[in-house]
Amino acid sequence: MSTTVAVSDTGSETLFVLVAGSTETARIEGLSAAGATPRLVAHTSSADLEIVRYGRPVRSPVTPVSPSGCPTPAVVTRAVRELQRFEVVCVDAGLAKPTAAPTVDIGQTAGGDIRDPEPVEHARSLFERAETLGANLPASEIRIGETIPGGTTTALAVLTALGERQAVSSSLPENPLSLKRTVVDEALQSSGLSSGESAGEPIQTVRHVGDPVLCSVAGLTAGAVATDKTVTLAGGTQMAAAGALARHAGVDAPLELATTSFLANDQTANISGLANDLSLSLTVTDPGFDQRDHPAMNAYVAGEAKEGVGMGGALALADRSSVSSSDLLNRIETVYGRLLEDNPEVTA
Amino acid sequence: MSTTVAVSDTGSETLFVLVAGSTETARIEGLSAAGATPRLVAHTSSADLEIVRYGRPVRSPVTPVSPSGCPTPAVVTRAVRELQRFEVVCVDAGLAKPTAAPTVDIGQTAGGDIRDPEPVEHARSLFERAETLGANLPASEIRIGETIPGGTTTALAVLTALGERQAVSSSLPENPLSLKRTVVDEALQSSGLSSGESAGEPIQTVRHVGDPVLCSVAGLTAGAVATDKTVTLAGGTQMAAAGALARHAGVDAPLELATTSFLANDQTANISGLANDLSLSLTVTDPGFDQRDHPAMNAYVAGEAKEGVGMGGALALADRSSVSSSDLLNRIETVYGRLLEDNPEVTA
Repeated sequence: MSTTVAVSDTGSETLFVLVAGSTETARIEGLSAAGATPRLVAHTSSADLEIVRYGRPVRSPVTPVSPSGCPTPAVVTRAVRELQRFEVVCVDAGLAKPTAAPTVDIGQTAGGDIRDPEPVEHARSLFERAETLGANLPASEIRIGETIPGGTTTALAVLTALGERQAVSSSLPENPLSLKRTVVDEALQSSGLSSGESAGEPIQTVRHVGDPVLCSVAGLTAGAVATDKTVTLAGGTQMAAAGALARHAGVDAPLELATTSFLANDQTANISGLANDLSLSLTVTDPGFDQRDHPAMNAYVAGEAKEGVGMGGALALADRSSVSSSDLLNRIETVYGRLLEDNPEVTA
Repeated sequence: MSTTVAVSDTGSETLFVLVAGSTETARIEGLSAAGATPRLVAHTSSADLEIVRYGRPVRSPVTPVSPSGCPTPAVVTRAVRELQRFEVVCVDAGLAKPTAAPTVDIGQTAGGDIRDPEPVEHARSLFERAETLGANLPASEIRIGETIPGGTTTALAVLTALGERQAVSSSLPENPLSLKRTVVDEALQSSGLSSGESAGEPIQTVRHVGDPVLCSVAGLTAGAVATDKTVTLAGGTQMAAAGALARHAGVDAPLELATTSFLANDQTANISGLANDLSLSLTVTDPGFDQRDHPAMNAYVAGEAKEGVGMGGALALADRSSVSSSDLLNRIETVYGRLLEDNPEVTA
């Protein structure tokens, strides 16, 4: 009736670090699938942390499952955690709503709308706090995931400002790329930046057109590699954008990007090109959702959600261990069923 | 090289909840052994959480080991956790210094000196937040421990104001009872309270003469029993005082108090009398430290520290499982050795 998670007693284990935060950018209609309405979107990341930590939403009034039945990727990460026994450290980099998951708080200021001049005013202190945490965490390997609605738009803005490949995915089946580009254009304009102008200046980039999660992931990465830890960025184009920030901050250590086949199959994203540009070694894991006829899995096969909350990195962990595909799919069904069964009333 | 901790996937497991906080009362010289100087005392609880969560201090600049070599009881709780696989939720009820341990934040306001009229002004909201957390935590059994330097003095004040038995232990070999009584007298006087006057008014009691940890433990207990969870108060006279607050808040469910033999042997504390008064079923566990000639264990045998950070509750968990005494003592030596080996520079 219970599973176990690995806890390092020697600093030699894998630590899964989930960085959660928010950006007012997510309130722009049509950008994100993470939450049915802007009011609910604000709760998504807090609920994601609870699902990975406790197996279900605990304090959060929302169950992050789309009208079509597509659950948050937190369900998959949790399922792998129940089978694969990894320890999670949740990081609050600026959540919009409280969470009952224990968090290390490094920011606690929500990100602003990137169409305003300084959406992350405290970018420098946030980066430095994340860097310190990355240096201090007692583990030889850390996998970093994210949860922030609207994050692919801020990622596109960051990639654009840094002069990197402007390729990002979406949690929606149809990537609203032209809307994203309009928002990014406005973001650059409001900060007086042109494309590529902030290359080599990751902190300024985040301050003007980024979000607190991208900033924190880059800082964690810098701190971790400086203390000889292996870093895996667990996710898609957002984590690649965080990797870009780390590269522009001078991080030249090997970095892995572990994502899902759903993300890799997104032609609008071109994750392999982006990974290649940034010298991120790419791992793509296919969880075999097409083997089952289950609403949660069908939604992913149809292109919803795709990635997030460390899903690709969790799947890679399952893949390299002895977890069988059927155990994994069964467990995903179990976690999903638990969410629907609880179905906390939406009070947001 | 690693151990595992149990993680509930069904809400049927034990959750260990560690409530950390501070009280300015601890700055009164001679009250507490938890930290060599008042400046260092402020870091003790933050370090305790890191030790239980990560196995060593991570961000905290102090190693809570006394000049005689007596380590914080967090070492014992961590040792049991490495063997016994329980999951920990750390709660920040008002830490004085930051911690790298992930925490659920319910207070974040340090407690004042109880010689001032309202050391815990926000007692009501703190109690209610703790109550909600206790109700929400997905577990069938919770064990609650505490870490707050100076906590036995605030416990004495609370017991006195409630009209309960005025018996508290100490982390020092010689309990500075007369100093504590003087402080408690001043505390009652500054709030215009006489002994027993706030019986039945737990929130007012905490507000005037308590600390944020006692308040939070009482609230957690109330919320947990209201949702049919089994509650074990893991600790000594401080946890008994929290139990007294819960009783005065109308909690009449069975409650266990799990403490150490060192605390039970403290004649100044009379824990069994206190437990009996409050209808707390008492479990006393002797870890057999007298079987080894080791500085950490010798210090406990000599009466230092005695209890804290859930030690008695962790030992009871080990006792009811298959953990052998020699495995436990070996693991305590390992964790202790890790602390000394790291020996982070004291920068506080």
